[in-house]
Amino acid sequence: MTNAALHAPDGATLRLPRPLRLASGATLEDLEIGYASFGRLDADRSNVVLVCHALTGDQFVGDRAGGEKPGWWSAVIGPGRPIDTDRYFVLCTNVLGGCSGSTGPASAGPSGGAHALDFPVITIADMVAAQAALLDALGIGRLLAVIGGSMGGMQALQWATSFGDRMDAVAAIASAARHTPQNIAFHEIGRQAVMADPDWRGGRYAEEGVRPAKGLAVARMTAHVTYLSESALNRKFGRALQDRAAIGYGFDADFQVESYLRHQGKRFVERFDANSYLYITRAMDYFDLAEAAGGRLADAFAGLTARAFIASFTSDWLYPTAESRAIVRALHAAGVEASFAEIESDKGHDAFLLDEPELHRLLAGFLSSTAERRGA
Amino acid sequence: MTNAALHAPDGATLRLPRPLRLASGATLEDLEIGYASFGRLDADRSNVVLVCHALTGDQFVGDRAGGEKPGWWSAVIGPGRPIDTDRYFVLCTNVLGGCSGSTGPASAGPSGGAHALDFPVITIADMVAAQAALLDALGIGRLLAVIGGSMGGMQALQWATSFGDRMDAVAAIASAARHTPQNIAFHEIGRQAVMADPDWRGGRYAEEGVRPAKGLAVARMTAHVTYLSESALNRKFGRALQDRAAIGYGFDADFQVESYLRHQGKRFVERFDANSYLYITRAMDYFDLAEAAGGRLADAFAGLTARAFIASFTSDWLYPTAESRAIVRALHAAGVEASFAEIESDKGHDAFLLDEPELHRLLAGFLSSTAERRGA
Repeated sequence: MTNAALHAPDGATLRLPRPLRLASGATLEDLEIGYASFGRLDADRSNVVLVCHALTGDQFVGDRAGGEKPGWWSAVIGPGRPIDTDRYFVLCTNVLGGCSGSTGPASAGPSGGAHALDFPVITIADMVAAQAALLDALGIGRLLAVIGGSMGGMQALQWATSFGDRMDAVAAIASAARHTPQNIAFHEIGRQAVMADPDWRGGRYAEEGVRPAKGLAVARMTAHVTYLSESALNRKFGRALQDRAAIGYGFDADFQVESYLRHQGKRFVERFDANSYLYITRAMDYFDLAEAAGGRLADAFAGLTARAFIASFTSDWLYPTAESRAIVRALHAAGVEASFAEIESDKGHDAFLLDEPELHRLLAGFLSSTAERRGA
Repeated sequence: MTNAALHAPDGATLRLPRPLRLASGATLEDLEIGYASFGRLDADRSNVVLVCHALTGDQFVGDRAGGEKPGWWSAVIGPGRPIDTDRYFVLCTNVLGGCSGSTGPASAGPSGGAHALDFPVITIADMVAAQAALLDALGIGRLLAVIGGSMGGMQALQWATSFGDRMDAVAAIASAARHTPQNIAFHEIGRQAVMADPDWRGGRYAEEGVRPAKGLAVARMTAHVTYLSESALNRKFGRALQDRAAIGYGFDADFQVESYLRHQGKRFVERFDANSYLYITRAMDYFDLAEAAGGRLADAFAGLTARAFIASFTSDWLYPTAESRAIVRALHAAGVEASFAEIESDKGHDAFLLDEPELHRLLAGFLSSTAERRGA
């Protein structure tokens, strides 16, 4: 492994040397993992922060192309920022099953065409196992911290369960230790919207040269509403009309909120693979750390020596504060040093991606004190 | 008009003698209104209670076929029940734009085929104007009360605004005086799901012998989730699996909540017209009583002599208590006698249709005291 592959702010891909056995029992061969890294790795490789992305994120968590292209968490990651790349070496991988460099249903299968639905169904634990295998291949043993928001937080919690002895700290923001029936319901609506699109073709749209664009757009619109709070919608749009003085008595986008949602749907289709959307939402729905530990969440964290930071937002109704509190209670029951913050914000679930100074300050302090303690 | 047409527990249809001019400026000719009635009309026609149905409801609010077929509000309406048909004459109409006997997009247009999208876009005020025209045709002048839940509550509030001098009381349950951007967003998702279905055919599915069943099912699934509270979903389903001992690592309905939603979607498609769904959701999105009154909700109720009863449910996140409180404040500001109850329930928006003894007791008392006061 060369340093070129370690330092990859513009992204790199690595083929795992060994097959990966999945939770389902299936085995994936010739797995490729797309990743990106920001900052410099210390000589003793002790400053690695693994950041895990959310459902539709990618590995480009920091700025790339010499700063031309901002990363999806550029408010948090970069020189002098809360996760300071002058100090930490930040690594992020595209999740297994994704569509930004890692093997997923859109990747070529044995026959040459896309795997499509022949791709095995994956879990959050599988995503994390693939990340661990990538770190092995890169020669990175221990992590200073694993950090993520939303589905990234689920991966971070899974890391604490699967590889707790390999990390000093874990942070899960706007996340949950399981998908609730309401979470599952909204994902199922999205999947049904994709699969109802005749251009989905039973998943074989790529080889037939089409795309289930309308179905995927409806799925994205549905998810997007769950990412915003009612008050954010009121503040941003209210009942304001889009480019018109009066309602049009028709089915065009009269209201700004309609126009905005349609735009979100259309933009998403350009950047995301429909089958990846099915697979990743499924992995999230299957996520239930307590159940995997035999029914008691605290048992998922038994023996964990890493310290933990859990944060939620007051207006997040997708992964509400109650879910974060359940994680903190379980961590405490398992004897883990865990701090918790419920952050006042009217921005809903999306707040974890936005400018939230209190979160950023807490995250910076948590990371910094972890590094100092490790140094001591 | 014969008594047979007045007493119609199994439903009847009446063709309005005059065209109806709509809020959009369009005019509808030869309008038919489907309706049903329960109980007996007093000699002085003073015991009429108009019940307005919700988005996907119909006129069969009470039991029909001699009690064989329960109405959608049979817990509330019937002999000895909270809205006692031994005492009151209950009338309910299928809304204008609906698909259960009233003229709507599925009705035959001038060319003989269905109106489809040539049907003019309607408003809640248009629905109410059609109801008033039906009452005129039936020879019913004054109403003891207008009562409704959800979209039925919007109609009731619109009655108070449009025909306040024609009624003694108004009751709006789990309702709102306007559609919020979140309400609009969820409806827009449903409409986009319908219109994304290639079998929608630009609305002309009927003449082409198809139906946008998949799109309409997705729309219904989306709406259905908004009708249930998170706690109701937890209580009813949790993460329980459907007919299996372990997750299936696939895209079948592993979880009971998925199976339930798919079933709700499929059942709905059998009973509801897709274009009606577009038109009625649009009417709801356009609803904003304050805006129609010049910006101040209290002005919508200026001079209203009817008394009012407003109720909300603690776990209703679709039309939350705050929306009901805003109505009550406006009624009080307009000098209207208005009482309000926030009812403890974990059943979400759907609570208005279910067994909620407190609501039923309050509704019975409100109606009974209105009748006594009128009698005095």
